[in-house]
Amino acid sequence: MKIGAYLQNIDQKLVTCRLGDTARQAAVTLREHGIGAMPVLSADGTLVGMLSERDLVAYFAREGSALEDLKVEDMLTKSVVFMSPEADLADAMQTMNKHGFRHIPIVADGKVVGVVSIRDVLALAIETDGDIALHPVLAVAAR
Amino acid sequence: MKIGAYLQNIDQKLVTCRLGDTARQAAVTLREHGIGAMPVLSADGTLVGMLSERDLVAYFAREGSALEDLKVEDMLTKSVVFMSPEADLADAMQTMNKHGFRHIPIVADGKVVGVVSIRDVLALAIETDGDIALHPVLAVAAR
Repeated sequence: MKIGAYLQNIDQKLVTCRLGDTARQAAVTLREHGIGAMPVLSADGTLVGMLSERDLVAYFAREGSALEDLKVEDMLTKSVVFMSPEADLADAMQTMNKHGFRHIPIVADGKVVGVVSIRDVLALAIETDGDIALHPVLAVAAR
Repeated sequence: MKIGAYLQNIDQKLVTCRLGDTARQAAVTLREHGIGAMPVLSADGTLVGMLSERDLVAYFAREGSALEDLKVEDMLTKSVVFMSPEADLADAMQTMNKHGFRHIPIVADGKVVGVVSIRDVLALAIETDGDIALHPVLAVAAR
């Protein structure tokens, strides 16, 4: 299944943050939406990285209460692998496994259009409940 | 594949925390081991809950820098689904998907012996790279 079709199927609401957001604003955003990571955008809307729960916890481990003085620009993960909506979910699955990612931003025409998470992939892996060979994700992953 | 056999295969080091640990100690532990959640033990070693990156971020969102004054006992998730090492990884996969968990503690004879994460399940889902029908996890999941 193509990632673009999958994102449409689940009617995903894109949640992002900005470089200048505070750590706390970012935590509130992640919490409100129940997500583990989100794309970080520059002032002109370009993808510049990802900010995850893991980043926040790592900076809290290092800085303690001074976490509250940090901004997203101090904490984001800048080396980001992104994928096209034309790519297959099976490719996202393999990329996550290879690099240990739990979230991959999806970019079309230079704009972020969504995020695929490890949970999306797990849900798809389960849904078959009968014949994995017929499953759009796993059947491709197995090729 | 049984969970007990899987945990032996990957030679998992069990990482836990105590109710009296500070939020920061817990964050440092999660970070050092590169994990997203760990079992919380009472003074006598009994499993009383799980503490995750998500719990820490939620309390930072709510409390800000006062997170540093909190202890694990203030933040843990107390309603915990655990599984036996005799259970199948496929069951863990389905439990994660059903409840939205990313980590399941494994308990034998009243003691925590390991944790199965969503990443473990993903890695297993990928490893086949050829014939999912022969895969010890997915083949069972598909029954």
